[in-house]
Amino acid sequence: MIHGIGKFHSEEPLLLESGRSLQSLDLAYETWGTLNDVRDNAILVCHGLTSDSHVAGGQGTSDVKPGWWETAVGPGKPFDTEKYFILCSNALGGCGGSSGPSSVDKSTNSPFGLNFPVVTMTDIVNAQTMLADSLGIQTFHTIAGGCFGGFQTLQWMCHHPNRLRNAIVISATPRTTAHNLGLWEVIRQAIMRDADFQGGSYYGGNGPVSGMGLAQMFGIMIWMDRKVMAQRFGLNMTHQHGPSYTLAPEFEFQAFLHKIGQNAINRFDPNSIIYLTKAMDYFDLTRDGKSLSGIFSNAGFRTLLIGYSTDWRYPPEEMAEIGKALCAKGLSVEFRVLDSDFGHGAFIYDSAGALGIIRDFMNSSE
Amino acid sequence: MIHGIGKFHSEEPLLLESGRSLQSLDLAYETWGTLNDVRDNAILVCHGLTSDSHVAGGQGTSDVKPGWWETAVGPGKPFDTEKYFILCSNALGGCGGSSGPSSVDKSTNSPFGLNFPVVTMTDIVNAQTMLADSLGIQTFHTIAGGCFGGFQTLQWMCHHPNRLRNAIVISATPRTTAHNLGLWEVIRQAIMRDADFQGGSYYGGNGPVSGMGLAQMFGIMIWMDRKVMAQRFGLNMTHQHGPSYTLAPEFEFQAFLHKIGQNAINRFDPNSIIYLTKAMDYFDLTRDGKSLSGIFSNAGFRTLLIGYSTDWRYPPEEMAEIGKALCAKGLSVEFRVLDSDFGHGAFIYDSAGALGIIRDFMNSSE
Repeated sequence: MIHGIGKFHSEEPLLLESGRSLQSLDLAYETWGTLNDVRDNAILVCHGLTSDSHVAGGQGTSDVKPGWWETAVGPGKPFDTEKYFILCSNALGGCGGSSGPSSVDKSTNSPFGLNFPVVTMTDIVNAQTMLADSLGIQTFHTIAGGCFGGFQTLQWMCHHPNRLRNAIVISATPRTTAHNLGLWEVIRQAIMRDADFQGGSYYGGNGPVSGMGLAQMFGIMIWMDRKVMAQRFGLNMTHQHGPSYTLAPEFEFQAFLHKIGQNAINRFDPNSIIYLTKAMDYFDLTRDGKSLSGIFSNAGFRTLLIGYSTDWRYPPEEMAEIGKALCAKGLSVEFRVLDSDFGHGAFIYDSAGALGIIRDFMNSSE
Repeated sequence: MIHGIGKFHSEEPLLLESGRSLQSLDLAYETWGTLNDVRDNAILVCHGLTSDSHVAGGQGTSDVKPGWWETAVGPGKPFDTEKYFILCSNALGGCGGSSGPSSVDKSTNSPFGLNFPVVTMTDIVNAQTMLADSLGIQTFHTIAGGCFGGFQTLQWMCHHPNRLRNAIVISATPRTTAHNLGLWEVIRQAIMRDADFQGGSYYGGNGPVSGMGLAQMFGIMIWMDRKVMAQRFGLNMTHQHGPSYTLAPEFEFQAFLHKIGQNAINRFDPNSIIYLTKAMDYFDLTRDGKSLSGIFSNAGFRTLLIGYSTDWRYPPEEMAEIGKALCAKGLSVEFRVLDSDFGHGAFIYDSAGALGIIRDFMNSSE
């Protein structure tokens, strides 16, 4: 499997939804497979919130680090690298080499920190269109993503309907609900209230290690289904004797939360969490009373929607709105609701069910 | 309505479940109504986690501050002060005047802080038995409580079955689940990671204002039902114009979270949150493989169980275990599951449904 790593750079200013501009743009990306001569076999995979462009490891090359969707991308897999050219770019505002708060602001020669402009899902997708243009890809065969990646896919479907022929949206809804607005705010506050956050100018120092850990622990409480907590950890203690009656966490699940929280800062830049969750805050396809069916054009793309019955953050009934609006436009839609104990995490941690459906969807595409 | 305020003090050491002892004990309490000559008309109300002994205001007296269960206690109300003597004491480990981390440790003449011994639900109830003894109450007519108060009631039913004739348990389960273990740990960490927490020795200083606020914001995310967030706040912004695209919270629900978080430290002592959630951690009536029906004796008390279909922290199916175990002992049980959009908060914020059931239960008691 051919695996490529690239960086797109543009000195053309990117006008943002806020009215501010980004003076230059970097997008770091990875590719798998080969773009054909007519450039119509490209699949854009949009990554999740704290994920990155490393969808799959480059089997057979020196890069053996597994990717986050290893099961989906490769020879003979649903996104078949023998047939398709798969592209994934690190989101604008993130920290995987694309422009974001950790990038150097040329006007100060220091990282932007909180001086980086607020970006929205529209901006994130607009940056992707510039990358696609640079690769000569006018129309994607398929655009696919879950959660934060699903929101990007929806944005493509609404704003660039002629640039895709198939869409796969997993665990994403037409808008961020009040519950998610609250969730993102608490996660940001956990980071920003850490004394080491230093107003976002922590680069070169320790950074908000404790606040990032706390945000991660809080995230687990929201993302992991209660049943999984009960099955995997139950009321087990970290030792064999009875309760110690101290203030230390002595239940296995509590120790797990601490362990997950310990290295959180090494996995993602805290400022990027702030910016990307802000982009989620503002995601609302129907702002100002717009109707969802009015937003979709009748461009002829096919859509596969996959939701999980236990995903109460992005519940199937909210996904169904998307399906109805697409149907109202006469577009082809397949909407599948799967059972899983993994709730919102199911599309990553319990992906087997979704993969079969995606495989069939891809096989039935032109 | 007669309203009394009292403080119980004992110099008798209280042996705790941990094996440690508390050298002396204070329990601050309030009463409503009059204890009859045969002392068989007493109702013990057990308060919720961050609540206190002020169940009701003393209408007709100088104390007009409304209590947290104003709708339940008073003349003609379900806990009728014309008929019953209602008692509520601040929990051991709390901060309402009962012994806890903010109490002065006589050996140092400073507040205990984190040197206060860990207390369990068993200890909290054992302290209440000492108060009951001091008031000459051998057997309560009724013991009632929700959530943390419900756990106390269950503890009375298991360990002191001859000291009550009626039990009312609302939104409580036989044990703390992994989900709740995680929740309590994150709440404690939000407080303890604040630089101003100072290892719990913050008395006289500001204390962990920011961490307490964060814990409260996090708590709202867990306690409030998603539907209520959507109905009450939706995607409204704090202003009339469109998005500002700044990092400030500009959605109403986010502003609400900040507002709730702002005065959290004035409402409850952070160290008491740590101790009382620890007591919840250790609550497990069936630890070491005990069976629930084996724990209940066949003492003849009647039980009313009230759960809420939307309470996913203490779901009705877990409450049902209690009902089954009591039935297996031949005890009278009424189990009612109510609908409410308020989830776990329903017994306080949407109490009307429960009150009618409690009234009927009280009317049918001896």
